[in-house]
Amino acid sequence: MEIPERKLIKILRNFEKKDINVLRGIGDDCAIVKLSGKPYALCQDAIVEEIHFSLSYMSPYQIGKKAIYANIADILSMGAMPLYYQVTLGIPERIMSDVIRGIYRGMSYVAKEFGLSLLGGDTVSTLNDFFIDVSMVGEVVWGDYKGRNQAKENDLIGVTGFLGESAYGLKIMKEGIKKKRGIKRFVKRYLNPRPPFEIWMEIMKNDITNAMMDVSDGLLLDLERMMEESGKCGVIYYEKLPIPEILKKEKLDDYALWGGEDYQFLFTFPRNKLELINILKSKGLIISVIGEVTSGRGIKVIKDGKEVKYNKVGYEHFSRE
Amino acid sequence: MEIPERKLIKILRNFEKKDINVLRGIGDDCAIVKLSGKPYALCQDAIVEEIHFSLSYMSPYQIGKKAIYANIADILSMGAMPLYYQVTLGIPERIMSDVIRGIYRGMSYVAKEFGLSLLGGDTVSTLNDFFIDVSMVGEVVWGDYKGRNQAKENDLIGVTGFLGESAYGLKIMKEGIKKKRGIKRFVKRYLNPRPPFEIWMEIMKNDITNAMMDVSDGLLLDLERMMEESGKCGVIYYEKLPIPEILKKEKLDDYALWGGEDYQFLFTFPRNKLELINILKSKGLIISVIGEVTSGRGIKVIKDGKEVKYNKVGYEHFSRE
Repeated sequence: MEIPERKLIKILRNFEKKDINVLRGIGDDCAIVKLSGKPYALCQDAIVEEIHFSLSYMSPYQIGKKAIYANIADILSMGAMPLYYQVTLGIPERIMSDVIRGIYRGMSYVAKEFGLSLLGGDTVSTLNDFFIDVSMVGEVVWGDYKGRNQAKENDLIGVTGFLGESAYGLKIMKEGIKKKRGIKRFVKRYLNPRPPFEIWMEIMKNDITNAMMDVSDGLLLDLERMMEESGKCGVIYYEKLPIPEILKKEKLDDYALWGGEDYQFLFTFPRNKLELINILKSKGLIISVIGEVTSGRGIKVIKDGKEVKYNKVGYEHFSRE
Repeated sequence: MEIPERKLIKILRNFEKKDINVLRGIGDDCAIVKLSGKPYALCQDAIVEEIHFSLSYMSPYQIGKKAIYANIADILSMGAMPLYYQVTLGIPERIMSDVIRGIYRGMSYVAKEFGLSLLGGDTVSTLNDFFIDVSMVGEVVWGDYKGRNQAKENDLIGVTGFLGESAYGLKIMKEGIKKKRGIKRFVKRYLNPRPPFEIWMEIMKNDITNAMMDVSDGLLLDLERMMEESGKCGVIYYEKLPIPEILKKEKLDDYALWGGEDYQFLFTFPRNKLELINILKSKGLIISVIGEVTSGRGIKVIKDGKEVKYNKVGYEHFSRE
């Protein structure tokens, strides 16, 4: 069975209940709820062996880190700071307890890095699949949360870091490409997808963004989701995209458009904040202004001054690849 | 790989971080954390096809209800009221979307019943296993939370409802026992394990308990866990256990001691609250006073005035049966 995320969100929204304390419900990186009058971000994100990770090219330690980073990226992208997490492990008989310990060590490393506390969770037997499902609670610290439904007409569109690195890293590992110069960072990006917390912090402290989300399923698919939730159109300029040179050279620039698991932040911001963005860039933070928000719906990619049509080949959460 | 829950809790506690806002961490039905100064209960509990449920004798609707009831029982047993939940579904290709809808309908029914809101979650592909992992947030409403570590020496031990009903119901369904009088309620208890909310509410309103937990893995195993966390010894009297007559007649009284998924509440309370318990019983609420808490460790079962030794054949969360 294949349910695309968008369809699933529609099914889920049928079961949503009106609740004045739910500031943001189904359809974003996290839900935002008021607890004792203050807004908190809650999310839950799972990874499954041979779908999202493989013990054949990742250590248990790396897998544990990745499970937590994915959830941290969701919490940060709502403008919240991660606080607590719980973990369910689904474990088939073939998995030995040193793998489990390695995974907890990886999770624990990231938890320390971000000041997170493990609260518990569950451990269940499975017949075949090995999975890790993490739920996380974060606290909205500065003013309003950042939803993907907050993009405003005339906003500019920004993205942190580079795009397609993680997908290219996975390709390198899967295909065993011989050692070339400068490819190590791509493998590292796939294996250690730490969200760019320091850039995020500057963006938050300077109150720059309207809408924000993490790029986990590829730029185009994620931007399209943001525009759908905001009821706007996103226009991006191919020449402005932070595509690593090597991808362009190898004609793999599609990886930057559709490649999953970059865990960079995609955001929109009012034009009067452009100067602040430029100051951050001058300090060495990698941020690219890639387009703008207009009226209408959907997304447009402009290349050499003309609109380019892309077939959707993106990486949907709920698909095998 | 088989990690008994007790061993897993030990592994997990190695990764626990000191945090003054975590009032109760790993090792209970829920964690209790302070958010904006108020205590909340958080838990996460998964069920896996052919381990905890089967589509061969349960409808998707019943499976959805069960996934939520299991978490509600955990929240209630901390003395908290359930507020929000998230769901991760792990779905293999053979599962059709009407099954998914049925599960959400079942979850939604229980959510309405308890005033819970669905906040979101995740949906992932798996290669083989079908699983449902629910995380839940509840609010501690009356005074202190109820931990399984709060049993006091000289407390009495109480339990709600009957024991072994769910395990017997499962046996009936699996073995297809021919229709006998009065067995329907056991099947119903297995298929629809609604925690006894109304009794719980009276117990809470009257501030009766010290320690509390839900009986999900069998009375003896769960009582042993409570005593271990409290550093006490639980003495129970076989003759006082609420064992359904039919189980005694069929010599299946072991089901009442070791059978899982009863989702009744096991609690300890000071002797001066016994009168209150008797008033609740006189109103028709099914509560049994089955023993007492003494110094020492572990559990003792007294039958015909003598201590009986039992081999552990209980249902550990992390085992196949």
